[in-house]
Amino acid sequence: MTTRWADDDVYGHMNNAVYYELFDTAVNAHLIESTGLDVRALPAVGVVAETSCRYFREIGFPAPVDTGLVVERVGTSSVIYRIGLFQGDSGEAAAEGRFVHVYVDNTSGFGDRPVRPLPDEIRAVVEPLQRPAG
Amino acid sequence: MTTRWADDDVYGHMNNAVYYELFDTAVNAHLIESTGLDVRALPAVGVVAETSCRYFREIGFPAPVDTGLVVERVGTSSVIYRIGLFQGDSGEAAAEGRFVHVYVDNTSGFGDRPVRPLPDEIRAVVEPLQRPAG
Amino acid sequence: MTTRWADDDVYGHMNNAVYYELFDTAVNAHLIESTGLDVRALPAVGVVAETSCRYFREIGFPAPVDTGLVVERVGTSSVIYRIGLFQGDSGEAAAEGRFVHVYVDNTSGFGDRPVRPLPDEIRAVVEPLQRPAG
Amino acid sequence: MTTRWADDDVYGHMNNAVYYELFDTAVNAHLIESTGLDVRALPAVGVVAETSCRYFREIGFPAPVDTGLVVERVGTSSVIYRIGLFQGDSGEAAAEGRFVHVYVDNTSGFGDRPVRPLPDEIRAVVEPLQRPAG
Repeated sequence: MTTRWADDDVYGHMNNAVYYELFDTAVNAHLIESTGLDVRALPAVGVVAETSCRYFREIGFPAPVDTGLVVERVGTSSVIYRIGLFQGDSGEAAAEGRFVHVYVDNTSGFGDRPVRPLPDEIRAVVEPLQRPAG
Repeated sequence: MTTRWADDDVYGHMNNAVYYELFDTAVNAHLIESTGLDVRALPAVGVVAETSCRYFREIGFPAPVDTGLVVERVGTSSVIYRIGLFQGDSGEAAAEGRFVHVYVDNTSGFGDRPVRPLPDEIRAVVEPLQRPAG
Repeated sequence: MTTRWADDDVYGHMNNAVYYELFDTAVNAHLIESTGLDVRALPAVGVVAETSCRYFREIGFPAPVDTGLVVERVGTSSVIYRIGLFQGDSGEAAAEGRFVHVYVDNTSGFGDRPVRPLPDEIRAVVEPLQRPAG
Repeated sequence: MTTRWADDDVYGHMNNAVYYELFDTAVNAHLIESTGLDVRALPAVGVVAETSCRYFREIGFPAPVDTGLVVERVGTSSVIYRIGLFQGDSGEAAAEGRFVHVYVDNTSGFGDRPVRPLPDEIRAVVEPLQRPAG
């Protein structure tokens, strides 16, 4: 993924919130590209229930960022992803994120929305990313 | 804090990354306002080592967001904050964030920067926010 | 409107793109608050056809920004706004933006959408903001 | 350049302010890559004096955006760029931006900063992008 001038804050490095834009993009790009569907129009959609990030090394504009995406757990109605961000020649992740999607009804409009089972199309493209427990 | 039209994503609610812009702002606004200093110009500055957020209820534009900021721990060279975000009349937090600042040398330019003790000016304004354990 | 830590770029001032987040917010907040409606759900919605900004003085985090919103022109299916941004005690605008909304059909989904007349609810709240010529 | 999930707003298309993040990035990436310098550390730096954008067609996540960058005018202390954004197979620009950099002293800190001549390193990489008039 490419970085942007505005990603860097006053200290000259990527602002901590921007990492989450990249996590979000890595997850959704995988879902959209591997299903070939507009996942935003499925009857159940993933809403973000929990996220976290540990920042190991500073990254920033203008070099691009490589991402590694694995699935930690596939539940009945949730998926937990782990995302590594890499920049430059180092093989070590500059940051590691965790991203929890819970699937909810896409037709209820604003307000509390009932949890729904993971759509089969989503399950089919997240299960292959599961990392065997080590 | 006020919300922005662009904060909401395609599902009509605040994008998960934007919450971290609010956490960042809550922490730094407290430091700047309560010290009366430009904290970005101190010899040691806080870089973000770890963040996380649990999302309980959807929030978004146009209503403002109230924040509650407490300090979980003050270390030799780090501060751990917890931030609650509230919107509307509900007394329950819509999201709860955790934000870890580690203080590093502000004069070393880009690259690895040595950890430094918390500046006294910072310590003086974060210790009063400590929430008693239990 | 409140500013955010991440608004400032590496030069320590608000990034030029962020001004447009404030323009967008000023326009839509006026429409939502003064109509009392969720304008995103009206049969015709305003899409942005043209924007511009002249930057006169640097602004940035942490002080809030005041906005002045006027309407330059109300057309059959478009509205042209001018927005001034102010920070601090100065009575002079730090930036002046221009923002053109064209109303299009809200039900056609993605792709080219036919232009529609301005909804009456919108017309009623933008005409009073017209600044007399001269 | 890659797009991000958070770029799209509630209408499912790239928010109007995000286009300016792309303009900014196109200009600065060209300057950094073609000079081989950290342009943020030169004695004179470009601050943004004026920007504008006309939006012709909706673009958004997840497809990447191609950019075309030309220079409209090189002055003593300013450069005017035009940037076209393209997405998908269409040869027509989805948006066209205008971006005016004025060079100012990089050492004066916050506040009013005197205008400076364009650094030679910058001039050398923007003059070749000039589009012949007519």
